[in-house]
Amino acid sequence: MEAPGEAEGAVGPGGRRGGLRCRHPVAEMLDLPFLPFSIFLGGLGFMCVAFVSAWCQHWRGGFALDGGLQMFNWHPVLMVTGMVVLYGAAALVYRLPPAWSGPKLPWKVLHGALTLAAFTLAVLGLVAVFRFHNNHGTPNMYSLHSWLGLATVLLFSCQWLAGFSAFLLPWAPAWLRALYKPVHVFFGSTILMLSVASCVSGINEKLFFSLRNGTTDYKCLPAEAVFANTLGLLIILFGVLVLGALARPSWKRPDADSPDSCQPLLTAER
Amino acid sequence: MEAPGEAEGAVGPGGRRGGLRCRHPVAEMLDLPFLPFSIFLGGLGFMCVAFVSAWCQHWRGGFALDGGLQMFNWHPVLMVTGMVVLYGAAALVYRLPPAWSGPKLPWKVLHGALTLAAFTLAVLGLVAVFRFHNNHGTPNMYSLHSWLGLATVLLFSCQWLAGFSAFLLPWAPAWLRALYKPVHVFFGSTILMLSVASCVSGINEKLFFSLRNGTTDYKCLPAEAVFANTLGLLIILFGVLVLGALARPSWKRPDADSPDSCQPLLTAER
Repeated sequence: MEAPGEAEGAVGPGGRRGGLRCRHPVAEMLDLPFLPFSIFLGGLGFMCVAFVSAWCQHWRGGFALDGGLQMFNWHPVLMVTGMVVLYGAAALVYRLPPAWSGPKLPWKVLHGALTLAAFTLAVLGLVAVFRFHNNHGTPNMYSLHSWLGLATVLLFSCQWLAGFSAFLLPWAPAWLRALYKPVHVFFGSTILMLSVASCVSGINEKLFFSLRNGTTDYKCLPAEAVFANTLGLLIILFGVLVLGALARPSWKRPDADSPDSCQPLLTAER
Repeated sequence: MEAPGEAEGAVGPGGRRGGLRCRHPVAEMLDLPFLPFSIFLGGLGFMCVAFVSAWCQHWRGGFALDGGLQMFNWHPVLMVTGMVVLYGAAALVYRLPPAWSGPKLPWKVLHGALTLAAFTLAVLGLVAVFRFHNNHGTPNMYSLHSWLGLATVLLFSCQWLAGFSAFLLPWAPAWLRALYKPVHVFFGSTILMLSVASCVSGINEKLFFSLRNGTTDYKCLPAEAVFANTLGLLIILFGVLVLGALARPSWKRPDADSPDSCQPLLTAER
């Protein structure tokens, strides 16, 4: 996906734009620095986690580890926190201006650690729903939400292992790293899109399940429905903004597409 | 979103690559020409339309214009055909090799016509569901699916009007066109993502609604559930492939990011 500013010139580590081409004063005026954007995005991510936690705590009975409905409630909280918010933060590590200069390895380690944390939360979120289903004799893996969600986590596990093997271990040849890098970047964005679609279908499904009796029917749009629908929109907005930030050329590391990327990343940039 | 091949050099209109940089023989071997990809994508789009039609015809009672359940069935068929398949085809118009040389205007008109057709189908799809709801006394616009779906179509209407005003009418100044172009491209991909998320949540919701009695319960994964879940996965695959194709630099018009894009598109490229 491309983002506003795609046809713009590169920006130096200090945030000053170099190699400008036909930039209109209005374009310059509308140009957004990364810092205020990332603060807004951080606030939005915090709201996503707060909303999903408040939904489960206030309307769905809170949290427990007893295999009951309160155990299920960990599922939405852990999936939104791991597969959307933490994942989005991990994806944007290389867009932080301090990551633009100096050795790349610490940022690669941070990216790997954050994605591993996101993956761990996702696995715990899956354990919560499988344990709940098994305790209640409910079959697993029948809905489109479950098919898409599990496929997304499986894809994420492959992505993490391939990224770790190619970019953090020293064994992959330079040509293979250079070949794999754009594939890793593409699947990085794709997994976030699939996560957001999984969350939307999951929230929708949960509301149809939970709001079924006459007084609180989903159709009557009770407060819980408005709140959880709003959570869904916040998650979508967060995902779209992360994908937009990833695609924005002026926020990329200036050397992201330079010939250096064909050299072994670990040894060349340590 | 970035795609495989992002760090590669540009390709000439004939499909031959110029300005290569550190391309490994394996990378060259794996390089995919647009034509076979678009044939595969066309087949996949056809399968999406065939699957959603077959689902509604075979399991949901077929089609009618009487305001009943058979009228509702037009909703999934028209939304998938318009907002995913036709929209995806419209988005890829500029990636067709014949569009790479010669005047751009015919391709702009084709892009505008295809997106208008997609939008028309989407509006008819909305009419079908609103008419069905109103005839049955069911409230409109309560589920997250409906919020997201309507927001997507409204965003699409703004996108179409803004695109038409900026790129097909001769009144917009060159700097405004250049400023708006990457915004249009970004929202183009975003709307497709939102459409796919709407379809996934809609299919999930419809299956929970329809498969409720003991013998065909969604939980038991009857043939209809497997079929419609597969439809959901096909739609996701179609969306991801379109977004990947849009992001692939070697499939873009060679002049897409050239200084020409700052000149008035209509007059400069007629």
